[in-house]
Amino acid sequence: MPQFDLPLEQLQQYVPERTEPLDFDAFWEKTLAEAASFSLDARFEEVDAGYTELVTEDVTFAGYGGHPIKGWMLRPRSAKGPLPVVVTYIGYGGGRSLLGEWTAIPSTGVAHFVMDLRGQGAGHRSGDTPDPGVGGPHFGGHLTLGIDSPETYYYRRLFTDAVRAVEAAQAHPFVDASRVLLSGGSQGGAIALASAALSPTVLEHAPLAAIVDVPFLSHVRRATEIVNTAPYGELVRYLGIQRGREDEIFHTLGYFDGVNFAARVTMPALFSVGLLDDVCPPSCVYAAYNHYAGPKSMNVFPYNGHENGGAAQAAEHIRFQREVFSGA
Amino acid sequence: MPQFDLPLEQLQQYVPERTEPLDFDAFWEKTLAEAASFSLDARFEEVDAGYTELVTEDVTFAGYGGHPIKGWMLRPRSAKGPLPVVVTYIGYGGGRSLLGEWTAIPSTGVAHFVMDLRGQGAGHRSGDTPDPGVGGPHFGGHLTLGIDSPETYYYRRLFTDAVRAVEAAQAHPFVDASRVLLSGGSQGGAIALASAALSPTVLEHAPLAAIVDVPFLSHVRRATEIVNTAPYGELVRYLGIQRGREDEIFHTLGYFDGVNFAARVTMPALFSVGLLDDVCPPSCVYAAYNHYAGPKSMNVFPYNGHENGGAAQAAEHIRFQREVFSGA
Amino acid sequence: MPQFDLPLEQLQQYVPERTEPLDFDAFWEKTLAEAASFSLDARFEEVDAGYTELVTEDVTFAGYGGHPIKGWMLRPRSAKGPLPVVVTYIGYGGGRSLLGEWTAIPSTGVAHFVMDLRGQGAGHRSGDTPDPGVGGPHFGGHLTLGIDSPETYYYRRLFTDAVRAVEAAQAHPFVDASRVLLSGGSQGGAIALASAALSPTVLEHAPLAAIVDVPFLSHVRRATEIVNTAPYGELVRYLGIQRGREDEIFHTLGYFDGVNFAARVTMPALFSVGLLDDVCPPSCVYAAYNHYAGPKSMNVFPYNGHENGGAAQAAEHIRFQREVFSGA
Amino acid sequence: MPQFDLPLEQLQQYVPERTEPLDFDAFWEKTLAEAASFSLDARFEEVDAGYTELVTEDVTFAGYGGHPIKGWMLRPRSAKGPLPVVVTYIGYGGGRSLLGEWTAIPSTGVAHFVMDLRGQGAGHRSGDTPDPGVGGPHFGGHLTLGIDSPETYYYRRLFTDAVRAVEAAQAHPFVDASRVLLSGGSQGGAIALASAALSPTVLEHAPLAAIVDVPFLSHVRRATEIVNTAPYGELVRYLGIQRGREDEIFHTLGYFDGVNFAARVTMPALFSVGLLDDVCPPSCVYAAYNHYAGPKSMNVFPYNGHENGGAAQAAEHIRFQREVFSGA
Amino acid sequence: MPQFDLPLEQLQQYVPERTEPLDFDAFWEKTLAEAASFSLDARFEEVDAGYTELVTEDVTFAGYGGHPIKGWMLRPRSAKGPLPVVVTYIGYGGGRSLLGEWTAIPSTGVAHFVMDLRGQGAGHRSGDTPDPGVGGPHFGGHLTLGIDSPETYYYRRLFTDAVRAVEAAQAHPFVDASRVLLSGGSQGGAIALASAALSPTVLEHAPLAAIVDVPFLSHVRRATEIVNTAPYGELVRYLGIQRGREDEIFHTLGYFDGVNFAARVTMPALFSVGLLDDVCPPSCVYAAYNHYAGPKSMNVFPYNGHENGGAAQAAEHIRFQREVFSGA
Amino acid sequence: MPQFDLPLEQLQQYVPERTEPLDFDAFWEKTLAEAASFSLDARFEEVDAGYTELVTEDVTFAGYGGHPIKGWMLRPRSAKGPLPVVVTYIGYGGGRSLLGEWTAIPSTGVAHFVMDLRGQGAGHRSGDTPDPGVGGPHFGGHLTLGIDSPETYYYRRLFTDAVRAVEAAQAHPFVDASRVLLSGGSQGGAIALASAALSPTVLEHAPLAAIVDVPFLSHVRRATEIVNTAPYGELVRYLGIQRGREDEIFHTLGYFDGVNFAARVTMPALFSVGLLDDVCPPSCVYAAYNHYAGPKSMNVFPYNGHENGGAAQAAEHIRFQREVFSGA
Repeated sequence: MPQFDLPLEQLQQYVPERTEPLDFDAFWEKTLAEAASFSLDARFEEVDAGYTELVTEDVTFAGYGGHPIKGWMLRPRSAKGPLPVVVTYIGYGGGRSLLGEWTAIPSTGVAHFVMDLRGQGAGHRSGDTPDPGVGGPHFGGHLTLGIDSPETYYYRRLFTDAVRAVEAAQAHPFVDASRVLLSGGSQGGAIALASAALSPTVLEHAPLAAIVDVPFLSHVRRATEIVNTAPYGELVRYLGIQRGREDEIFHTLGYFDGVNFAARVTMPALFSVGLLDDVCPPSCVYAAYNHYAGPKSMNVFPYNGHENGGAAQAAEHIRFQREVFSGA
Repeated sequence: MPQFDLPLEQLQQYVPERTEPLDFDAFWEKTLAEAASFSLDARFEEVDAGYTELVTEDVTFAGYGGHPIKGWMLRPRSAKGPLPVVVTYIGYGGGRSLLGEWTAIPSTGVAHFVMDLRGQGAGHRSGDTPDPGVGGPHFGGHLTLGIDSPETYYYRRLFTDAVRAVEAAQAHPFVDASRVLLSGGSQGGAIALASAALSPTVLEHAPLAAIVDVPFLSHVRRATEIVNTAPYGELVRYLGIQRGREDEIFHTLGYFDGVNFAARVTMPALFSVGLLDDVCPPSCVYAAYNHYAGPKSMNVFPYNGHENGGAAQAAEHIRFQREVFSGA
Repeated sequence: MPQFDLPLEQLQQYVPERTEPLDFDAFWEKTLAEAASFSLDARFEEVDAGYTELVTEDVTFAGYGGHPIKGWMLRPRSAKGPLPVVVTYIGYGGGRSLLGEWTAIPSTGVAHFVMDLRGQGAGHRSGDTPDPGVGGPHFGGHLTLGIDSPETYYYRRLFTDAVRAVEAAQAHPFVDASRVLLSGGSQGGAIALASAALSPTVLEHAPLAAIVDVPFLSHVRRATEIVNTAPYGELVRYLGIQRGREDEIFHTLGYFDGVNFAARVTMPALFSVGLLDDVCPPSCVYAAYNHYAGPKSMNVFPYNGHENGGAAQAAEHIRFQREVFSGA
Repeated sequence: MPQFDLPLEQLQQYVPERTEPLDFDAFWEKTLAEAASFSLDARFEEVDAGYTELVTEDVTFAGYGGHPIKGWMLRPRSAKGPLPVVVTYIGYGGGRSLLGEWTAIPSTGVAHFVMDLRGQGAGHRSGDTPDPGVGGPHFGGHLTLGIDSPETYYYRRLFTDAVRAVEAAQAHPFVDASRVLLSGGSQGGAIALASAALSPTVLEHAPLAAIVDVPFLSHVRRATEIVNTAPYGELVRYLGIQRGREDEIFHTLGYFDGVNFAARVTMPALFSVGLLDDVCPPSCVYAAYNHYAGPKSMNVFPYNGHENGGAAQAAEHIRFQREVFSGA
Repeated sequence: MPQFDLPLEQLQQYVPERTEPLDFDAFWEKTLAEAASFSLDARFEEVDAGYTELVTEDVTFAGYGGHPIKGWMLRPRSAKGPLPVVVTYIGYGGGRSLLGEWTAIPSTGVAHFVMDLRGQGAGHRSGDTPDPGVGGPHFGGHLTLGIDSPETYYYRRLFTDAVRAVEAAQAHPFVDASRVLLSGGSQGGAIALASAALSPTVLEHAPLAAIVDVPFLSHVRRATEIVNTAPYGELVRYLGIQRGREDEIFHTLGYFDGVNFAARVTMPALFSVGLLDDVCPPSCVYAAYNHYAGPKSMNVFPYNGHENGGAAQAAEHIRFQREVFSGA
Repeated sequence: MPQFDLPLEQLQQYVPERTEPLDFDAFWEKTLAEAASFSLDARFEEVDAGYTELVTEDVTFAGYGGHPIKGWMLRPRSAKGPLPVVVTYIGYGGGRSLLGEWTAIPSTGVAHFVMDLRGQGAGHRSGDTPDPGVGGPHFGGHLTLGIDSPETYYYRRLFTDAVRAVEAAQAHPFVDASRVLLSGGSQGGAIALASAALSPTVLEHAPLAAIVDVPFLSHVRRATEIVNTAPYGELVRYLGIQRGREDEIFHTLGYFDGVNFAARVTMPALFSVGLLDDVCPPSCVYAAYNHYAGPKSMNVFPYNGHENGGAAQAAEHIRFQREVFSGA
């Protein structure tokens, strides 16, 4: 059944109760403080991949635990002064890939920072960043890695990297630190949401806005009840093996669930949803959207799945970005 | 079985006999002459999609039968004089999509012409060009459309459009008509092969080289014997219903099979193949490659399917393009 | 879930609002008037396929645009005078096939007219009729062919052929023009519904009744929300690529939706439905049935899918036909 | 959708109306009386399979119609006196398999009787017992075998065997006939339910309790409406072919449906359910559980399918068994 | 891979060694002699299903063990004297269905006898004949039923019925016993082959010829090595559970394998094969064909699977039948 | 195609060339020496899971890096003196599970040691051991974890654990250290092979023999060419993303490939293979077997896949174990 989730009218009203650990803010405050104890050490080295109209740079900065995180920075060669920057986060299993995938944003006249994902980059786009974490029993990819406690959970490290990535982008000599737009789809949308909630708590310049396409890791418990496709299906299977540990595991996830971040964000955001999306189901996307505390708009794609708006949504990104940067 | 086709050593030696209609050249000579009777009427209208570093234009030109064919033309805004141009053909079911998908090539400092596909553009990338052809009974997409005779076959119209697209690109005021690179993957590879064979017979300036990734429509009879995935599977099913017409249908296909074009091309070409490709099987790709009469090289991706080299092959394109254009 | 649609009690009450273009009747009046400007030119040529108890004839008549449409006519050899006739329409992707498939109806002592489908006949039963239409971008088979406007939509041509087929059957010297029964399942059911609504507006003798098994193209918008199997799935995918054009496309479909034809028919009809049918979902079948304005009965097959009643429903056809023809 | 059935809160309240043939009790009384006319003839022959800590015996006893039914009996070699016994029934398509699969229960210090299933034992675990029954048209395995009437239905023979198996276990010299625990999952759960209802009506010593994991053959009509996986899917397909015989077939099933047995049992029972179980759907399991007339408890596995509790539920069995046998 | 089996040139030369039990002929002689001890008791009762041009009769005759076997007999109402008769055997899981499926053959002016299949008729076409056999452990349908010994194997009973069906057809007052054509596809082809080999050994008038489309149960051991689709897959799974019994089971199958029957037949036969057939693989069909000892021809459908020639092959049947009956 | 790999006769002769890193022995010598620098610290704590006939103990010992590794130890309660011990390794994704799964071996009168797998235990059987390793980009489970170098590869840690597990088992007061049998299937077979090669190089008492069912991680390069099921499919996909790194990755795998271990073992071994196994393909199993340097025998299951011999092979284990232990 293509439209397997709630009908659109109900989705628009769907504001499920959030379950949030009492020490949510303390947890993240402590986590980010620990990260801040490591020098950011953002380095940018120009590389020649043939894109002569752009300046393309290989990035390294210190993320969670001071671990080196890779990335790309691209900007128009024609640019003279400080540029606004789009910080992009990648979907599940992907990495920063090669530079050729990232020419669109800098062609609009702004800088583009693409963060690599620790331990990922072997499922679709290639990656270059290891994850020196501790791994308990897990199934499949990274969704269940270290899920036994908030402290060891993979996404603690990743979301911390994401905040540090903003800081690294802002540190670039050609970037105007006061004009940052966060962007991501699916897992990238989850990271963008987390970064939008956490960055303002520690950075001098908060990002201006966020693009959050079909966010993953949002209203996770419901997701595990209505889809078992990858990646949520990895969690379903994990719970099926680790019988009786549901409450414990969902407690951990409470520190990372997009609905809890959404309720803390105040910057404007552009969301999108595909009504046939069985990877990040519409009700879970709307759960984040309806809890989102800042100005917001939603692009609905009634006949699309997880690919959602594709090239049409990319065009929307450009429109939104122009609005955000021109207004700053 | 991932490597379901011949092993690599045999692929490299695989030169199957070609079956070519006696009047192959006459057929195409007549077809292109008819097309030439229509004015090309190439029009380029600038559109603003937010890519400020580029000049982006909507293209219309007269293809087969004088039918209006759409396309995109992109070039770096910084460019002053005549530029080399890459002419790109799209894969099965796709269309020219939106401009945001085509920023990579112009970011390398050259012009980029993307031809829309008549009647396609509803399977993955969207398209904008109707196909005023005559349709006999067909199954699924365009592979069996009008296949009853070479005259009515869909690819007669499409390959003719492809030659006219080169002419249209060359007609652009910022383009150096003597420096054209043809490019395409899958069905786009089939079109690039056909265009590489046919363009030099009618255009003042022949293209310099061609990129032919995992070409479709090549050694078709074998393809129908070893894969039934889409799109070859549409032909398998068509033959299964139109029992007893195999010889007639493969006779039609002889005018369009990539091996027959390959044997006629003299310009250099870069090919690629995925050894796990069950859409355009490796032996059919090698059939075209091994019959290819010009200078050539093959990128082999042993653990990839139809996605073949992905971003890595895109990087190879840039390297090859640089070589081609710098050598001219 | 076998019974994925509404439960039977709700199906029986399901009368969704119809959305009908204001000029629905004008559109069809104009369309049929244009068709009437071509001479019907119905020709019947006896062929020997070995069925000695029957007279079997190859049929050609002028359909939409005066295009030649093929068909079969079969009647018992023993018949002396004018016979009632069953006019049969075929399911999606099929054609008139060979004569051996159509011996059952003439064995009941009546004539049988089977209309070929333009452009179809390559998916299951073979066909022999080309479709000289204009094709915009479309995906897969005929459901999205020319869907950009009612004027160019494939089903405008096909439904017009269907009305002309009744006229052709009535023109046969052995047929009693006042005793026609329309019949079809799936796409054939959609055609039968359209023909039942349109034929009486232009023919001297309206058909007496219709058999409408699991009709396709009925309550289409809901169908695209609850199934993505072929053929509705072709439309789902088309809408997924042609983002933002939903209203335009469903406006076109309003001229062809079975619920709008059903509301106009006054002749008796026998319907059938399979409660597990995920090709033509039960609620869409009931939408047509519950809007059907003539006397009607529904055969419910609770444990069948799209095959619905199979041989059992064929037996019902014979019973219904006997009733219809004996009552005339 | 993992949780495709009712939500847990509704499952816990789900008490569907039972449809029970008027002569249900008479039917079983007569059936068991007929069986009692055959001598039980339980034979136990020691076999050496290398499990030296256990005494392992090959069992034969006379089941329905006096047909010889096989089984295994295992007990700890250290045991001196009469032991409590667990009687285990197997899931669909399985047989008694080899002794190595049954060492866990006797390792807890009790006897273990495993009944082979007539005619089954070729789908997963191997079996050794033929079924000299009469077979009408059936599809797939045993679910539709002889379903034309209660008298000829396969499960009449099987459930009778199950009662006789208890009697055979009780006849063993090392068994304390007053301490029997019935146990089974899926089809085995259905048999355990039937045996729990029927054994007390004919045996001198009723079993003390039953373990009923994810019972099959329970609330069958609903099952056929919401799943078409094996084995219920065999019935769905059978009903799809034998159109119009639904009432007759469900009448037969009324004599065998677990809800009707559940309503008759008074001994304590441990149930389990997997909320993602699409083989024996949760609502059908709860239908039996909620109608169950004895003391009962339910283990819910929210992220498991038909495998339900796996090793965790096996640990629960040991706990329950200890409770049952120590309390006796 | 569509053409997963040997290439056509090798198929045409493929004559695998047959493994035939020494007492093959004795086994069948004894089996048929036992059957002959029961009176044939063929009864024909006219039924009215609305096919007024035909005389349609419900048939009952005594098959193996004297068990009552059902069937249909149809003939043209116009016929006066003795008619040639086609005896048709049905594919796996099917039964005689309803009369409406069998009007084609009698429309050619001959009689048509359709034998129902004991115990089948619940998988596609419905059936009406029970199978009072003895069932050992079996998996799925009838292929493994009683396979423990040739004496108890299901196909012993079925092939015996098939010979008796010919006798019953010959006993009809309107039938010319000297003009019988056997016909069947898939399992029906296996039965036709067996009947063609066995009938002449016991009947006064041997059938004249046989139509054997894509025969099942032929060269079975190879089939289990190259396909695991239904029904051969049922045997693969059975062998997978009944480990170590391969030789025994294939010994049983030796009495029933089509290659052993083929080598004994002398009447002319028309075969067909689909080169993509993964149900009855081409090499197994050719094994029977190449061993076939009578005059023979093969229709090859290179792009068809198990559906093989469909309506085109049905037309071939009529052509062949005309040849056979006119030559007699 | 069930038998998709080489035919049995070729498998039995299949001895592919091994590619072994020059420093293979040095690598493992160094690795094991490092491990030996950590105290073994084997602890056994009795737990009551209700299996009163057995003594069941929770095990912890120091594996690679001194990391704590869990396990189970079970022995017959009746045992007085030192017992032989079976050391069992688990398949991919599994962990030690609960005690109820391991009663069969101790019921034969010997001790049974089951090693938990670091980081696994979330795919089928549950586990309890974390893996404090460094994780580069990886796809899916553990097969690609740390595969960038032999030093960081997951299996370096796991195989080292496996050797330490033998040492831990030998350290148990009830165990006769001179009588150890290694055992495992699939990944467990790979571990058993590695342990059989490595244990004798560092332990005082080498194990006596090994059971190696359908070993994984053997002749890996070929495996990636002929199957893409899990888990080899994870490597196929990883290689597909990490294009161009094939040689590097297969170099790493050379230190862990079963064929290289097999060539070093001298103790007797019992292997098994399923000819339909598409998880650990027969040719890869035979590659290890045919290179195996000790006395050996192979159980062939021609109609089984990865489940291979199931209960029948378990019975073979008991027979082999009896032979091994009685001979010592």
